[in-house]
Amino acid sequence: MKLIITEVGLRDGIQNDAVFVPTADKIRLIQQLFDAGVRSVEATSFVSPQAVPQLVDAEDVIRGLRKPAGASVSALAPNVRGAHRAIRAGVDELVVFLSASESHNRKNVNRAVSDSLKGIEEIAELAAAHSVKVRGAIATAFGCPFEGDVPPQVVAGIARAFRAAGVTHLTLGDTTGMGTPAIVRRVCGEVLSAVSDAALSLHFHNTRGMAMVNVAEGLALGIAEYESSIAGIGGCPFAPGATGNICTEDMVNYLHECGHETGIDVARLTGVALEMERLLGRTLPGQLMRAGPRSRLHPMDSVRTAAAQPTA
Amino acid sequence: MKLIITEVGLRDGIQNDAVFVPTADKIRLIQQLFDAGVRSVEATSFVSPQAVPQLVDAEDVIRGLRKPAGASVSALAPNVRGAHRAIRAGVDELVVFLSASESHNRKNVNRAVSDSLKGIEEIAELAAAHSVKVRGAIATAFGCPFEGDVPPQVVAGIARAFRAAGVTHLTLGDTTGMGTPAIVRRVCGEVLSAVSDAALSLHFHNTRGMAMVNVAEGLALGIAEYESSIAGIGGCPFAPGATGNICTEDMVNYLHECGHETGIDVARLTGVALEMERLLGRTLPGQLMRAGPRSRLHPMDSVRTAAAQPTA
Repeated sequence: MKLIITEVGLRDGIQNDAVFVPTADKIRLIQQLFDAGVRSVEATSFVSPQAVPQLVDAEDVIRGLRKPAGASVSALAPNVRGAHRAIRAGVDELVVFLSASESHNRKNVNRAVSDSLKGIEEIAELAAAHSVKVRGAIATAFGCPFEGDVPPQVVAGIARAFRAAGVTHLTLGDTTGMGTPAIVRRVCGEVLSAVSDAALSLHFHNTRGMAMVNVAEGLALGIAEYESSIAGIGGCPFAPGATGNICTEDMVNYLHECGHETGIDVARLTGVALEMERLLGRTLPGQLMRAGPRSRLHPMDSVRTAAAQPTA
Repeated sequence: MKLIITEVGLRDGIQNDAVFVPTADKIRLIQQLFDAGVRSVEATSFVSPQAVPQLVDAEDVIRGLRKPAGASVSALAPNVRGAHRAIRAGVDELVVFLSASESHNRKNVNRAVSDSLKGIEEIAELAAAHSVKVRGAIATAFGCPFEGDVPPQVVAGIARAFRAAGVTHLTLGDTTGMGTPAIVRRVCGEVLSAVSDAALSLHFHNTRGMAMVNVAEGLALGIAEYESSIAGIGGCPFAPGATGNICTEDMVNYLHECGHETGIDVARLTGVALEMERLLGRTLPGQLMRAGPRSRLHPMDSVRTAAAQPTA
């Protein structure tokens, strides 16, 4: 299957990182992602600079990019003001969002879900007037850290509301890694029947080690778009030290091993991951960047002889 | 499906760890695993104490255990001398092993595969004479770090040789995490047709982030036994800092979420993982022990209000 991978590391990955990534480095990393074949990048968020200091340079990042043919750059637009800024800066796609659970939406944006939807309708109109695409992201689609399970019908209802507002590209976000293959099957099934003409993208977190099996479930359902974060950057606000976003290069490598096509060069992607690790100055969750590809063979003298050391 | 989980952390997990785990702690951890419902533990290896100082206390560990009803304790027996020691100490099962690839077998035990098989025949006779079970482990079954792909027919041929030696319980080991779902399907398919009456167990490493999708593939093939390591301890000799064994509590949690039964209490298992982390004094790869179960809800005041901080 031909798949579309959206890199979210420069937004969801680093937004709460203690290390400020300089604007020039952000731009350089995104260019390297383009060079690796990535064609969809969520590059930043047009949120208040006071609120998210890491993304204070949203305009400069968007304006600084040299996009290859066929590439799409998106940015989060939390409100109409942010949408205006993003459109002016020249994004191809606005990402609007709300949470499937009322309590998470309240906590995240201090609004009822219905109020978020009204704001989104306004942004969708604005975007349409400027011929900018809109992607609607539904956070906590596979579970809410405050409420627990979120009924699939509720997620499907929001998907329908997005659809009614003209948003035909949807992302289901597993915000705190509560998804399991069974839940992915139920929620996606409900959403796919509710808005059969929408493009669906899945955004998993590896908080409980299930991100890749959830991707596998998405693939089994025929879903062709996945969001991920280079080197697996981005944690979980509820669990210090826990993993957040699924790691892009690990996921792309897995997808290729399953025979799917992404147009991405895994070796170059791994190079970007190592560069990100160097910039942030700490070990990041990605596996492949430490282990190397399975095709990289080792000389027999690369480890000590171990009649001694039987490994099974 | 009713599944059997074999905990290998106290053997494969810690064998090369720089931190010596005191004998009393090893015994206590295994007892805690029993208390959590684990009923199969690979507890140690009867290897030369000079070679693997961590496992110098093999006899004491085996003799110190109070086994609950139905529990099986196994130990690695690299040679006849080790098998004698293990049987005298009172193990329920000997684990004998070789590598599917000649070069890895040479590197690991300094012998040709055919010579390893002869040694295994001898151990199998000894075990039969003492009514001790034998499990045959085939390392590098899904790929060799020196040779690359290992033909499924080669793995199946070794399985047949094990079977001919009276070994009816087999483990396929993904020693350096080279397995992918497609390879798991091919290799296991070949082995299952070659030795249809053998019990098959799978031992995955998460070196490239694919351990859980490989378990999923095993489940799809109807395979009911999996080996794993508490807290995900155990690295990869070829990649400093890389992950080794799949993490027991993450895997068991996933299996339960898929509706399978293991008889294991995940919360207690996570407690053992945290205890292991305390003993080794560093962060281990397990995810669930940091994030907590998905059923653990958070109070809404547990994170800062983030109109500020939109997460998708």
